[in-house]
Amino acid sequence: MYIPVILGTGREGRMSEKAARFMLEKTIEAGIESEIIDVRDYRLPATDNTEKSLLAGKLSQKASRADGFIIVSPEYNHGYPGELKMLLDMLFSQYAHKPVGLCGVSSGAWGGTRMVEQLRQVCLGLRMVPTARAVHFPKIQELFDDSGTLKGKSQHDQAKKLLDELTWYAKALKEQGQVAARS
Amino acid sequence: MYIPVILGTGREGRMSEKAARFMLEKTIEAGIESEIIDVRDYRLPATDNTEKSLLAGKLSQKASRADGFIIVSPEYNHGYPGELKMLLDMLFSQYAHKPVGLCGVSSGAWGGTRMVEQLRQVCLGLRMVPTARAVHFPKIQELFDDSGTLKGKSQHDQAKKLLDELTWYAKALKEQGQVAARS
Amino acid sequence: MYIPVILGTGREGRMSEKAARFMLEKTIEAGIESEIIDVRDYRLPATDNTEKSLLAGKLSQKASRADGFIIVSPEYNHGYPGELKMLLDMLFSQYAHKPVGLCGVSSGAWGGTRMVEQLRQVCLGLRMVPTARAVHFPKIQELFDDSGTLKGKSQHDQAKKLLDELTWYAKALKEQGQVAARS
Amino acid sequence: MYIPVILGTGREGRMSEKAARFMLEKTIEAGIESEIIDVRDYRLPATDNTEKSLLAGKLSQKASRADGFIIVSPEYNHGYPGELKMLLDMLFSQYAHKPVGLCGVSSGAWGGTRMVEQLRQVCLGLRMVPTARAVHFPKIQELFDDSGTLKGKSQHDQAKKLLDELTWYAKALKEQGQVAARS
Repeated sequence: MYIPVILGTGREGRMSEKAARFMLEKTIEAGIESEIIDVRDYRLPATDNTEKSLLAGKLSQKASRADGFIIVSPEYNHGYPGELKMLLDMLFSQYAHKPVGLCGVSSGAWGGTRMVEQLRQVCLGLRMVPTARAVHFPKIQELFDDSGTLKGKSQHDQAKKLLDELTWYAKALKEQGQVAARS
Repeated sequence: MYIPVILGTGREGRMSEKAARFMLEKTIEAGIESEIIDVRDYRLPATDNTEKSLLAGKLSQKASRADGFIIVSPEYNHGYPGELKMLLDMLFSQYAHKPVGLCGVSSGAWGGTRMVEQLRQVCLGLRMVPTARAVHFPKIQELFDDSGTLKGKSQHDQAKKLLDELTWYAKALKEQGQVAARS
Repeated sequence: MYIPVILGTGREGRMSEKAARFMLEKTIEAGIESEIIDVRDYRLPATDNTEKSLLAGKLSQKASRADGFIIVSPEYNHGYPGELKMLLDMLFSQYAHKPVGLCGVSSGAWGGTRMVEQLRQVCLGLRMVPTARAVHFPKIQELFDDSGTLKGKSQHDQAKKLLDELTWYAKALKEQGQVAARS
Repeated sequence: MYIPVILGTGREGRMSEKAARFMLEKTIEAGIESEIIDVRDYRLPATDNTEKSLLAGKLSQKASRADGFIIVSPEYNHGYPGELKMLLDMLFSQYAHKPVGLCGVSSGAWGGTRMVEQLRQVCLGLRMVPTARAVHFPKIQELFDDSGTLKGKSQHDQAKKLLDELTWYAKALKEQGQVAARS
């Protein structure tokens, strides 16, 4: 099973990278192949259509092969980062009937809940299956120690439940996809 | 397979009933057992807790047995009707991992799209799987003839696609549920 | 200035009542006339249209006179309570161009943020002006002592900022309404 | 009064530009100074921080002077374009207490209603005042003739109502801002 972790912000000094690395570790620990898909590597050039096609092709390879997705992203002004939306909007059919688990990051107390709610609507628009579970990283600046180790406890439990649900859906949907393809 | 149609408004003169009856017909035509669950039959009394329990028990029997749900509802002031939310909030575990198809009704041109978006967030909160497809009934007052027959064309196609997706998910999730229960 | 506090849930054992009483106190302390409008007093009967009209009339008197609104409500399954929506949907023109401040209550950690986001869309649909500021009461069961006194600190500051913004808007919009009426 | 029109997509072949030009004309006809702020001119470079500061400064000058905003944008996968969000997220204080009117564009039938709902939440996060009125351009590819003239009728009326509401709010909020500054 292959479930990459999309990191939704490319801003300098981004704290969300720590949360994304934590989710990557947890995913690999659960025996799932994974890697980080970084919005920094998919910034669309303003004018060069050849490069656009190359980037979309690169992302398409990963997304086509994926059995599901994890997205880790901060909340900016109650919504999702523009960079993340540009990355997601590059593809369409590759997402269909694949589960997605959302992880919200915030410097304040609410853990990116509002971003998660908006992103769920987008993921449904892209025909993904958002899990009910989410992982939240409120006050991210206080959550990790200097070595990048998570000090918070609840995220370990949240991540486990998210991954359980995500793999449950991934199996169910993959199998049904194969049934549909055979029939 | 059993997929009931929840009718989300009890207002007098409700036009959504026609849309719900249309979806019921389409569901039965697709070989699925169905019936209308009418918010009028689940109005919570203000004070009588015994009756509340009876109503919740009645709804629970249907929801537990359901393999999925269809909800037909008008949009009121960009949101869902209060009656529909009260009905949905009566239960919780009975909805888990079951697909739901949403149908929006409006007197204006937008077909209840905004209500559908809000309701999707609620359905995810209830751990359902909202389908990507939806059916929309804009300008509902012009859509049906006097005998209650739909004059619009696009809804036939939309309903077919919604039911295809809904049954695809219902099968996938039911099977995986049985695998999980066995293991 | 008259700014009533709408209490959005009628459930037995509701904790939101404590939050509503706190907001009422703060509003009165700020020199604003206020009172609680309780959804329990506006439960629409299923059949009696005369009583429906009476209830709508009673609410209309208060809403017409109001210079703004505060709504205190729990989050149920990522949305607003059905009772609250039924109350809001009883009226329309009485809300136009009046500010509304939203206060979210939750037993969990996120303070009703998701309910607030959905409710803002409804309030805009009703042509109100939602303030940017909100007050959040996360883990409500731990926030008040036995005498009903708030133990939390941040809510005092949040309430002050909400009331400042609410009265700023109320004055601005009332004055412009009078200019428009005169011209 | 100065109310610029933000054009929310830079995609090649963008149809939204026609809708933005229509809104610009209507705004100027109403005696309001205006211009198009094009996301193409504010594309953030991935690495060059000096250019980022220059772009933010240029946008800040316009936004600080603005008495309100109009945003014209397509809906991509039920959300707003990433480019638009990146532009909006460049600033914060410059938006406070200024009204914003939203215009949705779609190739399908729903006129960008879902994008408008999400964008309203973002605009509230940025402390703007979203108007209740919106303008919708459904099936944009059929709405304009070859010379770029709008064939649709309802948008003329919608635009007038949006501009009336926008200027009403702009006056009210500007005046109150001056009162607050004097006191």
